[in-house]
Amino acid sequence: MSDGTEGNGDGVDADGDATTGDVAPADDADDADPDDERDVDVLIMEATYRALRTHGYAELSVSHIADEFEKSKSLLYYHYDSKDDLIAGFLSFAGDHFIEMLDEAERDADDPVGTLRAFVDLYLGAELDEEMAAAQRLILDLRAQAVSEPRFREEFTRIDRHLRERIVDAVEDGVDTGVFPADIDPEAVGSYVLATLSGAMLQRHTAEDDVVTPVRDVIHARLDEFVDE
Amino acid sequence: MSDGTEGNGDGVDADGDATTGDVAPADDADDADPDDERDVDVLIMEATYRALRTHGYAELSVSHIADEFEKSKSLLYYHYDSKDDLIAGFLSFAGDHFIEMLDEAERDADDPVGTLRAFVDLYLGAELDEEMAAAQRLILDLRAQAVSEPRFREEFTRIDRHLRERIVDAVEDGVDTGVFPADIDPEAVGSYVLATLSGAMLQRHTAEDDVVTPVRDVIHARLDEFVDE
Repeated sequence: MSDGTEGNGDGVDADGDATTGDVAPADDADDADPDDERDVDVLIMEATYRALRTHGYAELSVSHIADEFEKSKSLLYYHYDSKDDLIAGFLSFAGDHFIEMLDEAERDADDPVGTLRAFVDLYLGAELDEEMAAAQRLILDLRAQAVSEPRFREEFTRIDRHLRERIVDAVEDGVDTGVFPADIDPEAVGSYVLATLSGAMLQRHTAEDDVVTPVRDVIHARLDEFVDE
Repeated sequence: MSDGTEGNGDGVDADGDATTGDVAPADDADDADPDDERDVDVLIMEATYRALRTHGYAELSVSHIADEFEKSKSLLYYHYDSKDDLIAGFLSFAGDHFIEMLDEAERDADDPVGTLRAFVDLYLGAELDEEMAAAQRLILDLRAQAVSEPRFREEFTRIDRHLRERIVDAVEDGVDTGVFPADIDPEAVGSYVLATLSGAMLQRHTAEDDVVTPVRDVIHARLDEFVDE
């Protein structure tokens, strides 16, 4: 799972400057103080991110998050009941942001092969600055907690599903336009590529040997074959 | 499982349950002196496993492990200084066991294709009983901690490297015997397959959608092609 891309430098960035704000619910426009409501939530999520960066999931407490929150603590406690409640909210926020990045990558790509290449680069950037690496490590920490916390699992299911469906769509488009062979099973390819990307990211941050480079190379070389044909 | 847990030398068969994360303590049929260093260590590791199963990494304390340890607590504190010290020991123990299973799978396989199939089945068993599922979840929990704990990272690097090297060896054997095409890059295939297996296992336990079945199917179907040729 990823929320990092050095491609546009637009990761799960706690500074707020890279956050466009389009993760806010659209129907806020009818509420009394939509910007305030949305801003409070974004500020809470950014505080959660900073607290997670500092403490990691195992050591994190709600008071750590409150310490990072600049507004009245009561606002935070009003919106969220527990540490896992805050983390579930954070994963939803980070997931929306990741899905935004997928949308953008898809819009920017010229064709199915370009879309697949963009997804690989989004998930497994050839280079990773420290900010993005830290964000990915944090997400992996939370992903491991999804083995026992259903709300985290739900968010990772949603995020995985989005990426897999987009891979499937790109492969189907490629089959339709004759770039990929007609006997390819887009669903199976989607699951396979998603597993490969997820595993390479896991290994990037939890073991020494570089698997990202060979995995990127294999996928790009495979795509080259179709383009050259 | 006091048999074979020292990794090499005694040639005693493991329990034959070919599933990754099979770190569950089995019946201790060993009649050796209870004061034997190795037996004490095995008992400590089994206590660590039980405590991890119950509490998970985040909540685990040394006293939880001591509670699961049947012998004098002072023995435990004599051997290990901290929670992470115990966990690093446990990962080494579990890693040795996993490597034993790879050895066994390799010995039992008839040819390179059979070896690769066995590794897939070892990592991504089509069915997983609750004991094995719990063991894999526990390992993933610890793997996520490897992002920040160098000793855990070292153990996962060792385990990953063993599996990758065996995949590479099998692919090289397949190229040498003409089963696989000569232009295959065994190193790249090894990294790629390892990433795919790791990612599918991660997703199996942290998201709802089944990726294990399609990933198994894709790999076995790909291998079928070479066998049929």
